[in-house]
Amino acid sequence: MMTEFGLIAAIEQMTKQLPDNGFEGIGDDCALLPIGGGEVLCFTADLVVEGVHFLRQTMTPEEVAEKALQVNLSDVASMGVRPVATLLSVALPREVMEGDWVERFMASYGAASQRSGVALIGGDTTASERDIVINVTAIGRGREEQIKRRSAARVGDWIVVTAPLGGSAAGLRDLLAGRLDTPAARLHKSPEAQIEAGVWLGARREVHAMMDISDGIASDLRHILHRSAVGGEVELLQVPQHPAATREDALAGGEEYQLLFTVAEEAWPALAADYRRHFARELYAIGRITASNGASSLRWLLDGKEIEGNWQGFRHY
Amino acid sequence: MMTEFGLIAAIEQMTKQLPDNGFEGIGDDCALLPIGGGEVLCFTADLVVEGVHFLRQTMTPEEVAEKALQVNLSDVASMGVRPVATLLSVALPREVMEGDWVERFMASYGAASQRSGVALIGGDTTASERDIVINVTAIGRGREEQIKRRSAARVGDWIVVTAPLGGSAAGLRDLLAGRLDTPAARLHKSPEAQIEAGVWLGARREVHAMMDISDGIASDLRHILHRSAVGGEVELLQVPQHPAATREDALAGGEEYQLLFTVAEEAWPALAADYRRHFARELYAIGRITASNGASSLRWLLDGKEIEGNWQGFRHY
Repeated sequence: MMTEFGLIAAIEQMTKQLPDNGFEGIGDDCALLPIGGGEVLCFTADLVVEGVHFLRQTMTPEEVAEKALQVNLSDVASMGVRPVATLLSVALPREVMEGDWVERFMASYGAASQRSGVALIGGDTTASERDIVINVTAIGRGREEQIKRRSAARVGDWIVVTAPLGGSAAGLRDLLAGRLDTPAARLHKSPEAQIEAGVWLGARREVHAMMDISDGIASDLRHILHRSAVGGEVELLQVPQHPAATREDALAGGEEYQLLFTVAEEAWPALAADYRRHFARELYAIGRITASNGASSLRWLLDGKEIEGNWQGFRHY
Repeated sequence: MMTEFGLIAAIEQMTKQLPDNGFEGIGDDCALLPIGGGEVLCFTADLVVEGVHFLRQTMTPEEVAEKALQVNLSDVASMGVRPVATLLSVALPREVMEGDWVERFMASYGAASQRSGVALIGGDTTASERDIVINVTAIGRGREEQIKRRSAARVGDWIVVTAPLGGSAAGLRDLLAGRLDTPAARLHKSPEAQIEAGVWLGARREVHAMMDISDGIASDLRHILHRSAVGGEVELLQVPQHPAATREDALAGGEEYQLLFTVAEEAWPALAADYRRHFARELYAIGRITASNGASSLRWLLDGKEIEGNWQGFRHY
């Protein structure tokens, strides 16, 4: 039996034994390729699988297309880089080819690509026996100095998120209960990659580490702490919650596709003010980066006092 | 009902309406991105789906890994470019995670990547409900002047293939009949991308159009003729056949992953001799590029006389 984390560790191990051919950044949201002149390309891929990531009964082809695209654009934007192109692979059962599912899926994928300014440069279409499976590979292009890595958090940084959390997890609960059209359900079905916010934050030198929230901050923040060899504490009273979300949703709910980043303490007030002015939205500081204290590097505070919390984030298996 | 060709046409149409962001080459085996200094990156993606491209009963995890990698490296090499990296996405049913399938798959993918000198730079792992689905995105890097496009065939060119054909189709027949270990079956299960031949031919200016043989020459050659706006004639007596293959296999059998290219008439003898010296293998001239004569641009000759042939190549639906 191999667990997902075992598999990821095995892949990372293998990756290190192979030539890198100039690529770097394994362990971040994207791999990076410097191409000269201070420019960098970045690459990421994500699968969307029927029965695992969506049900044909609860999501329209338009929603599936949007989601498959947005989760990938989010990975690029979360490194501070603008996405420029995707490759789209779709495996479709014969009965899906017989209806209008494909046309609707493709039209929506095209419209969303247009809106986000990304090219469609290739991919594959094939039959499948039973399930719809979609893979999107996204490519971003930016300046070396705007790249934000998970490993760049510094002791003293504020930990910041770009929106109230937990709405996607609450929305998934709505969907599974047959409530397909609540605000939270729509949020779950139609995430929007934070491209403009990601690129804007990428241009700010005081922003250190950044990633997108795909598995819940309880899981995602640990990646930043681990890669940066630091600790962190989160003040639960400061974690903004979506109106439909429980605290568990906000801490451990996945598929937010909002941004999680760290910013130099002294620069935080000006950054928050500039962001509010530029986007007419808030940033939310939820905690601080601390010196690493060994194994349990993430501490939860409730009104300043440490409490036990075993939130783990979304597990894929 | 949308056919595969309808879907591909719809995707191409949509692609043209999106910004290109500097990418080009839709319709070739790969999309291209010039990155300055005369260098080009190229990109391709292919799905491998259980029940469609392989059966768990007839192919080992090692063979599935090799095939998923090789078909993508072949697309890069067929443009005359050396592959440098892949992203690997795998959707795995829970019962597969419980056995040693994954470890064996990954070990083989790693060994084949090592042998081909390509990095593994990212991807995704996720559960699936029922089927194993694999997507590989391959990236190549080369010089602009070595790129071979489907659109570059010229009237008078020889049409050339790099090996006797039809073995893969014959091997698939063996597999489906339970003969898992014939030479043809092994060829079908373990194709080898022609990386060194592709890069070598890429460096030869007299080689004009090139692609890999994935759907059979009856289908693939039509792509070259269509993109180059030329006609072609193939002399059936000159088409080299794998010992286990029928003529139908050789003309319409897919998944060869050998190269199909055109070369300037006057340069052909020297190219064939140089190739033989370098690789200790033969090239096979099977026909000529002619002026386009409208709708039916591909003519079949038997001992110089045109015959009717309705070979179509592999259809995915």
